[in-house]
Amino acid sequence: MELILSEHSESKDLIMKVGILAGATSNFGELWHISPRQMVREVTDEVLKEARLPKSKIDAVFVGNMLSSSLGNQDHLGAFFAEELGLSVPSTKVEAACASGGLSVHLAALSILSGQYRHVLVIGVEKMTDYKPELVNRALMGAGSDGEREAGATFSALYALIARVHMAKYGTKEIELAQVAVKNHYHASLNSHAQFKKQITLKQVLKSPPVSSPLKILDCSPITDGAAALILSPSDNKSQVSIIASQVATDTLGLSQREDLTSLKASIIAATNAYRQAGITPLDIDVAEVHDCFTIAEIIAMEDLGFFPKGEAAKNIFAKKTWIGIGHPVVNTSGGLKAAGHPVGATGVKQIVEIFHQLNGTSGNKQVENARLGLTHNVGGSGATCVIHILKKN
Amino acid sequence: MELILSEHSESKDLIMKVGILAGATSNFGELWHISPRQMVREVTDEVLKEARLPKSKIDAVFVGNMLSSSLGNQDHLGAFFAEELGLSVPSTKVEAACASGGLSVHLAALSILSGQYRHVLVIGVEKMTDYKPELVNRALMGAGSDGEREAGATFSALYALIARVHMAKYGTKEIELAQVAVKNHYHASLNSHAQFKKQITLKQVLKSPPVSSPLKILDCSPITDGAAALILSPSDNKSQVSIIASQVATDTLGLSQREDLTSLKASIIAATNAYRQAGITPLDIDVAEVHDCFTIAEIIAMEDLGFFPKGEAAKNIFAKKTWIGIGHPVVNTSGGLKAAGHPVGATGVKQIVEIFHQLNGTSGNKQVENARLGLTHNVGGSGATCVIHILKKN
Repeated sequence: MELILSEHSESKDLIMKVGILAGATSNFGELWHISPRQMVREVTDEVLKEARLPKSKIDAVFVGNMLSSSLGNQDHLGAFFAEELGLSVPSTKVEAACASGGLSVHLAALSILSGQYRHVLVIGVEKMTDYKPELVNRALMGAGSDGEREAGATFSALYALIARVHMAKYGTKEIELAQVAVKNHYHASLNSHAQFKKQITLKQVLKSPPVSSPLKILDCSPITDGAAALILSPSDNKSQVSIIASQVATDTLGLSQREDLTSLKASIIAATNAYRQAGITPLDIDVAEVHDCFTIAEIIAMEDLGFFPKGEAAKNIFAKKTWIGIGHPVVNTSGGLKAAGHPVGATGVKQIVEIFHQLNGTSGNKQVENARLGLTHNVGGSGATCVIHILKKN
Repeated sequence: MELILSEHSESKDLIMKVGILAGATSNFGELWHISPRQMVREVTDEVLKEARLPKSKIDAVFVGNMLSSSLGNQDHLGAFFAEELGLSVPSTKVEAACASGGLSVHLAALSILSGQYRHVLVIGVEKMTDYKPELVNRALMGAGSDGEREAGATFSALYALIARVHMAKYGTKEIELAQVAVKNHYHASLNSHAQFKKQITLKQVLKSPPVSSPLKILDCSPITDGAAALILSPSDNKSQVSIIASQVATDTLGLSQREDLTSLKASIIAATNAYRQAGITPLDIDVAEVHDCFTIAEIIAMEDLGFFPKGEAAKNIFAKKTWIGIGHPVVNTSGGLKAAGHPVGATGVKQIVEIFHQLNGTSGNKQVENARLGLTHNVGGSGATCVIHILKKN
């Protein structure tokens, strides 16, 4: 299955324009001294200040989070953070595993388009490093299928399987996987909020300890604490950047039910619908944040999103065709999940914050020149949910 | 704080009209032989058949659920049920404790109004009786505040506190609490899907074992398995019933932060906004489903929703002013949470299904004559989230 730009579904032809007034992320990392409440307060204060909006103007809150229930025994997270922020407005927790953040933005955008809400706060937040790794691993497998859990498979193991099939079918090499990590660590070295700001070499990746062969530790995104926030509103002159497409698709939870392991069907469906909704093609995208939970995931995303023909992404990434200052589109300027960190419920929100900053020209060291169109790609589990957003500089 | 019908907030003045094409609930009860997958398949098949809609026309799915993560280690529930139903459309799990179902309907309605989706399936589902009661109790307290959990308070204890204050302030009597249970068991005796179809007497309630004084076991809603489903669409000639208001408000998670324990601020705010959105007053409501997790909760809801003046609901309920065949509005024709059962994530969806059937005249034995306007009131925790819907016969 490849990107099908001619497919047509009448219900997805809505022209979308939702303004982004502000975006912020906390530092990402092992933040043992900072509570989720404090992280959320910090990013919320920052976006309210940036948007010059009094708190009383917030009409609704969406909270993207995966693990507060299974790790922290805290449900009812919408009301939890509304209380913390001193708000009595509608507040919803949205959960779709590692795509919780992207799905929160999707629902927030639709709530703006509905006309019921004018200023919507989107929060993505996850606290992961306070718990034992075994507990975190078990909780993360809540996103998988019953069969995968019963078999003891972890996401590293599942993505290793995917990598093996991609290598067998397209000749993808371990050194090409490694280059994804090298690029994303380089980009993260330009991002003051990133978990890993240190550049790494191909040799370091290839020599790093195996996690689930062919994936080594430096092929994997880390366990991370972090939060991100956005304020959305109807598109008007105040917003310099708009969301012009927001699309979601789902697939089977487990790999065993899928026809093909070398692409994610949900990514292809969501991307197809998003390009049509935005009225653009993949070639128009200047900058993208994609879901590189493992290095193989970025290679597959490049193909599923139509940036490179099937089977050709690895060598193009290796040739630096997606590197800052060199390539087009530039991919994962934040450092991606791999090097900026992956606080699972926050990731999808952080991706939009990153592209928002790229398009309004406030990305500092990692600014991509003349970026006008950007894309975010947020995946839940091993591809059971995919959320795509396309953003445009007004 | 009482219902303030003059308060004005520009962002909430959207005129709403969203059609309901079909609604169904499973049997509610201890369904040890039925899996969540099967419950959801059954209610979905039923609503698709009733709406005469092929599955391929469903554009999005919203799943209301609270406990799958903490009890079942299953997150990613949107994709989980999309897979079960053979759908690859956007699918979201919405969590707001016992208000998860109501909030799912709210977001589904907004997604229809956004124009992006035309036919939306809303599912509420909970599987609770397969787990040890201690585990269920612990998981349910995920909806409370840190302080309440640390103090070992359960929701029975919290609502007992609320009842004591209401009794002290307004002279509410235990026999008046008991009458709520008697009424709802009577209504449930007319509902073939109810968990408890047996009528009870005031004496039985008053003699039942204490749970947290003054609440006895027959003042409390049960632990329940069940599912409910709805299909929403833009309002057109096909739908006989429309949602004309959908409002949500939040309050502090814990009781200790609240100014008043004898009403729920979130109910008052959401109801005020809902009546204004619908352009009606409480007196216009013919039939209502309210969140009677404990008998005291229904008494307080009657006051917060403006059906009776503050402090006067208990004696009016005792005088059968909300009973089927006698009162107006008729309240909890399904039997409410108390007697129909309370599968937490399903409850808010079930309430809308009940009112939908009342307004389109398909409620059978429990049909309220000439019902034209109905209301649902769904509460999360001890009042930290409240969702109000107003439905109208077209």
